[in-house]
Amino acid sequence: MRQPAEIEPATVADVPDILAMIRGLAEYEKLADQVTATEEVLRASLFGDSPAAEVVFARVGEERVGFAVFFESFSTFLGKRGLYLEDLFVKPEHRGRGHGRSLLAYLARLAVERGCGRLEWAVLNWNTPAIEFYKGLGAAPQDEWTVFRLTEDRFRRLIEP
Amino acid sequence: MRQPAEIEPATVADVPDILAMIRGLAEYEKLADQVTATEEVLRASLFGDSPAAEVVFARVGEERVGFAVFFESFSTFLGKRGLYLEDLFVKPEHRGRGHGRSLLAYLARLAVERGCGRLEWAVLNWNTPAIEFYKGLGAAPQDEWTVFRLTEDRFRRLIEP
Repeated sequence: MRQPAEIEPATVADVPDILAMIRGLAEYEKLADQVTATEEVLRASLFGDSPAAEVVFARVGEERVGFAVFFESFSTFLGKRGLYLEDLFVKPEHRGRGHGRSLLAYLARLAVERGCGRLEWAVLNWNTPAIEFYKGLGAAPQDEWTVFRLTEDRFRRLIEP
Repeated sequence: MRQPAEIEPATVADVPDILAMIRGLAEYEKLADQVTATEEVLRASLFGDSPAAEVVFARVGEERVGFAVFFESFSTFLGKRGLYLEDLFVKPEHRGRGHGRSLLAYLARLAVERGCGRLEWAVLNWNTPAIEFYKGLGAAPQDEWTVFRLTEDRFRRLIEP
């Protein structure tokens, strides 16, 4: 029997669990060396005066089986807000039971409530199972675009040429 | 003689100019058919109680020669905010004079002030002049990722399968 996950917002007491999920995702993505977040940093950025993002857990019984981290974006073409899903993760031993879909459905409901025009997220190109899953939901790859990133260590060079 | 642009935040009185810039950019990107934003919609989303994004103009003398629209993002790996540049546009007749760079330098300064870990934006893959310009600034293409988008008309399908 499959028990569907409950989706519930995280609180400041959940910061250790949030960091564990971030690390779990980074390991799956083979990007563990890129994680520099600490509990202290997450507490300030996610649960301070002006939260930078929102976090929800997928819970089955007493166990947190996955999470999603998202923030509001904006489309000039639509003139509307969107939701940007920064992280989506289901623990490997809980995959294939619809929990990822439950997290995405929660976000789609939130997007409707907030009048958002789109829901977006980035996927690693080698992650075929994820890509097939997302296509099955009706999501379209924005293949014609590439994201460029300027990291903190390069800001100064641009400011003081 | 090249006059550098002044960068200044937009106000609600500037909504017609903002929409004109959005349309100018969409035409350049060959995406004009995707623009459904109206002045009314932009007024509400950008200058209401909870602005969805920030807008700055590049001005030379009395003329607005370009603009940038951006919002705050979040990186779980860093645990830090970032800035996401949704639109950057310089009117064709004012290109090659450093105004795009001035807009980006303004954003880099803002990113430093706000303790952001990154500045990101998306570029159309055929836009070689833009890609070369961004690489010259030290920005790195996130080639290994693809953005997936679920549009509003698909939300319902995910919510009520």
